[in-house]
Amino acid sequence: MSTRIGILGYGNLGRGVECAIRQNKDMELAAVFTRRAPETVSILTEGVAVHQIGTAADFRDRIDVMVLCGGSATDLPVQTVEYAKYFNVVDSFDTHARIPEHFEGVDAAAKEGGHVAVISAGWDPGMFSLNRLYAGAVLPEGKDYTFWGRGVSQGHSDAVRRIAGVKNAKQYTVPVPAALASVRAGENPELTTRQKHTRECFVVLEEGADAARVEQEIKTMPNYFADYDTTVHFISEEELLTNHSGIPHGGVVIRSGVTGWEKEHKHVVEYQLKLDSNPEFTASVLVACARAAHRLSLEGVTGCKTLFDIAPAYLSAKSGEELRKSLL
Amino acid sequence: MSTRIGILGYGNLGRGVECAIRQNKDMELAAVFTRRAPETVSILTEGVAVHQIGTAADFRDRIDVMVLCGGSATDLPVQTVEYAKYFNVVDSFDTHARIPEHFEGVDAAAKEGGHVAVISAGWDPGMFSLNRLYAGAVLPEGKDYTFWGRGVSQGHSDAVRRIAGVKNAKQYTVPVPAALASVRAGENPELTTRQKHTRECFVVLEEGADAARVEQEIKTMPNYFADYDTTVHFISEEELLTNHSGIPHGGVVIRSGVTGWEKEHKHVVEYQLKLDSNPEFTASVLVACARAAHRLSLEGVTGCKTLFDIAPAYLSAKSGEELRKSLL
Repeated sequence: MSTRIGILGYGNLGRGVECAIRQNKDMELAAVFTRRAPETVSILTEGVAVHQIGTAADFRDRIDVMVLCGGSATDLPVQTVEYAKYFNVVDSFDTHARIPEHFEGVDAAAKEGGHVAVISAGWDPGMFSLNRLYAGAVLPEGKDYTFWGRGVSQGHSDAVRRIAGVKNAKQYTVPVPAALASVRAGENPELTTRQKHTRECFVVLEEGADAARVEQEIKTMPNYFADYDTTVHFISEEELLTNHSGIPHGGVVIRSGVTGWEKEHKHVVEYQLKLDSNPEFTASVLVACARAAHRLSLEGVTGCKTLFDIAPAYLSAKSGEELRKSLL
Repeated sequence: MSTRIGILGYGNLGRGVECAIRQNKDMELAAVFTRRAPETVSILTEGVAVHQIGTAADFRDRIDVMVLCGGSATDLPVQTVEYAKYFNVVDSFDTHARIPEHFEGVDAAAKEGGHVAVISAGWDPGMFSLNRLYAGAVLPEGKDYTFWGRGVSQGHSDAVRRIAGVKNAKQYTVPVPAALASVRAGENPELTTRQKHTRECFVVLEEGADAARVEQEIKTMPNYFADYDTTVHFISEEELLTNHSGIPHGGVVIRSGVTGWEKEHKHVVEYQLKLDSNPEFTASVLVACARAAHRLSLEGVTGCKTLFDIAPAYLSAKSGEELRKSLL
């Protein structure tokens, strides 16, 4: 059985999904949908067409799962609900605080349409969430820690770029080594925002811009930087392109807990990701979830699911027998 | 809803299950079953009785899940099949090569009895297996590595104890730091058995035993030590009891894989456990699986399951809403 995938939205994430499909023999790319003029969008896969987003619903018989590759701020809250009427869908909705609300809306739409919708797939939410759940289920008495980085935060980079006098910028989120070491040692520290992460900015100035003023504006920016120790490096545009054009990310989820009649034994469970490409890894999770969505749908399941609700075997191309023999 | 647990077999693992039940408010210990004379077995929980193993089947209406705490060599191959007729069961069967065969036998028995049987729960097989599956599903092109330790291997400790002249012994399995560093760096090394782990033995000699001969016998023992670099320390019985009476263990599962149209991006996924008590952590996984077994059974599911077949949310005491709100 092959799963026919549609990609809706062709930015970094959409391109990542296209690459991931090529790595999975049971997947095939059926079509790409875009808001841009289709003839201006050139994709990597030969023989696959790009269509106007408005025509997507016409493809409902030719696509098993539509992978929605828009953003969480404005695209997905509308698109996932809309396309769950026509397709099994997968999204990477990552506004943690709004997940319950997103779930409710998508669940109703998917049930109405008779489809499976997997939301909030990726690594956080996604693989990190799974590890928080498993570790907490096994060690009910303990404490969770999540560290992000070292990696590029798109939102923080954008915030720096919006400052007057800034031509271009990249922002890295960096875990504080001492905090990480203390957590790994099972010391269960109480950590403030400032104690967990630092922020590092590489900034290209417009000609004649005042570096001291830009640095001050970055470091005092509320929500984004004011609560962190931030380092600002002014570099040339050439250096930015040479050394900071990638989109690496990653991080660590740790649960430190106790067992025993007197809680005398300590355990530390750690899950770590080191990713050269944040969007390609996220896309790879989306494609595994698309496989699961297709299978669940074939079994007659409908409604909204997260990785919490999906038996792990559904994500793998291997059969139950193969999995038990080779990975258990 | 409370889950009434029976414990069958009261050694380190059974006692670990008893401790884990106390940490989970939705679980209660219903009874303990033993091969020994029940009056000689004293348990930690007040008001719970110890019964002869032969009477277990009489308790089928008073126990929701029987957790089987025997060994994989001779107990579980017989017991899990037997008790799946009367109860939902959970076991920690860990003879990797024989899991497919164990699965088949237990599946037939559980279906016949109308019960759910979760086999091979623990950390390897168990949490490590889950992480191999997830990482492989997300990164289909890559390489898996599993390192065990630093931790006590019961089987290797027993093997040393069987040597003439050895009064007592503990064996630690230790990952080779350089091998681990290379894997973590995404270098995908090919590693021999000797390059992955070393073995460290702490040995108490009988009076008058020949240390050189014992050391030679350990280091050349086929299967157990001959393929490894082994260090032997001769210590006093007092030192063994003071410094080596714990049962710590742990290890690391790493998958290193690539994504991108030209496979140009590297990703490293790592899952690490550092456990003060191997049996208590294993027991904690068994109890989370008992919760899942009970829930699946209430939904009408029957047959043999592994962690691969269980949606993660079933393991947690939290509701779907709580999980999405707090952990996703």
